[in-house]
Amino acid sequence: MDLWLIGIGTGNPDHVTREAQRALRDAGTILVPRKGPGKDDLAELRHRILTEADAKAPVIEFDYPVRDEALPYKDRVIAWHDEIARRWRTALDGAKGPVALLVWGDPSLYDSTLRIAARLDPAPTVRVVPGITALVALTAAHAIPFNGLAGSVAVTTGRRLRDHGWPGEADSVAVMLDGECSFTSLDDEYDIWWGAYLGMAEQILDAGPLPETAPRIVEARAKARATHGWIMDTYLLRKRGVT
Amino acid sequence: MDLWLIGIGTGNPDHVTREAQRALRDAGTILVPRKGPGKDDLAELRHRILTEADAKAPVIEFDYPVRDEALPYKDRVIAWHDEIARRWRTALDGAKGPVALLVWGDPSLYDSTLRIAARLDPAPTVRVVPGITALVALTAAHAIPFNGLAGSVAVTTGRRLRDHGWPGEADSVAVMLDGECSFTSLDDEYDIWWGAYLGMAEQILDAGPLPETAPRIVEARAKARATHGWIMDTYLLRKRGVT
Repeated sequence: MDLWLIGIGTGNPDHVTREAQRALRDAGTILVPRKGPGKDDLAELRHRILTEADAKAPVIEFDYPVRDEALPYKDRVIAWHDEIARRWRTALDGAKGPVALLVWGDPSLYDSTLRIAARLDPAPTVRVVPGITALVALTAAHAIPFNGLAGSVAVTTGRRLRDHGWPGEADSVAVMLDGECSFTSLDDEYDIWWGAYLGMAEQILDAGPLPETAPRIVEARAKARATHGWIMDTYLLRKRGVT
Repeated sequence: MDLWLIGIGTGNPDHVTREAQRALRDAGTILVPRKGPGKDDLAELRHRILTEADAKAPVIEFDYPVRDEALPYKDRVIAWHDEIARRWRTALDGAKGPVALLVWGDPSLYDSTLRIAARLDPAPTVRVVPGITALVALTAAHAIPFNGLAGSVAVTTGRRLRDHGWPGEADSVAVMLDGECSFTSLDDEYDIWWGAYLGMAEQILDAGPLPETAPRIVEARAKARATHGWIMDTYLLRKRGVT
């Protein structure tokens, strides 16, 4: 089976590349999750992207399983990937290839689709179409560089930032998958650039020195999450004085 | 002045997003360097991107200055940015806005245009259009994840990898701006995924355990550079056993 993992950007239909549009048009089957973060909002956006790409292939849906919170973090994720792979197999039984899967952002960056695809047997021939990541959507929205001049950036998770603190060598840190505002665990020598719903009409941005900005972000994040029922956000931290 | 920095991807015209195409069409002036790495190859590609975006604005060219190799690295880069900003001002004297500048990859990632724009006086209103980075072009070409599961990635330069070694906390390292094959300074517990001319017809890939792959890359890189007269490449390293 040919399996195409197609990065579609962070929620702005204009993030879609020509390559992604062409792949969506050429696919034989389009596989989409029935539910995910944001449910209706994101389903509508996905529909718009398919329409604008003039994609005509049949859409097959599958349900995301629920994670087993009783398991330790990594085991929980591995069991979840196993179960998603099982559901893909069921959903794709008899489907016409190539099968296209729309991936938010880019399929390489803190995304599980490549690991799930590796569980399929027989192994599919995987093609990845790169997409606009949440990280470049964030730096573009703030019009800031990702790295300090000739510097180094650590890309990490909220959990790791909380557990291990600032990664030694980096002058900047980009944080993904942080549901717990882990930036509040840092002291005051950093600046933060934060963004939620990047690229979407609902986009919210905030930036400034960490001590005064952190409480504003915590509040805005909780409020937005309550309003929309979901949130996707990311942020960049930089040591003050790095240019 | 309105200045639009437009990420156009790594050299595949199909990396261009709808947002970038629209911005190129809406620009009042397009500013392009007369020479850069790759000269004719890249000029032709840029021309193709402008044609396919139906961009009709006048194109203004400027020459890149030569860096002063007598200066220490950071001073040299700063002086170079100062001089480019001066040339932009001269080139744009009387130009009709918005002024669009095409940036390889994405304007945030190891790129100087935001820092040069910050030197203009009066300060322009800067808009950044995010693009496909060399990093996602690399991971897409190899169909690999950027990060290990719930792991951390250091994005750094060849110089820093040589001078500081493996960044402590990271399980993966993505290296940019490495003209000296700095991966040869590491010992043998890593795997490497390398790519040059990513997304272009000339794309070259190699991957494998570092000890056996490094000499092949060194050779392929030297040969390709001699053939084309220039090279743009990047690579990802991962500790063996990280999934």
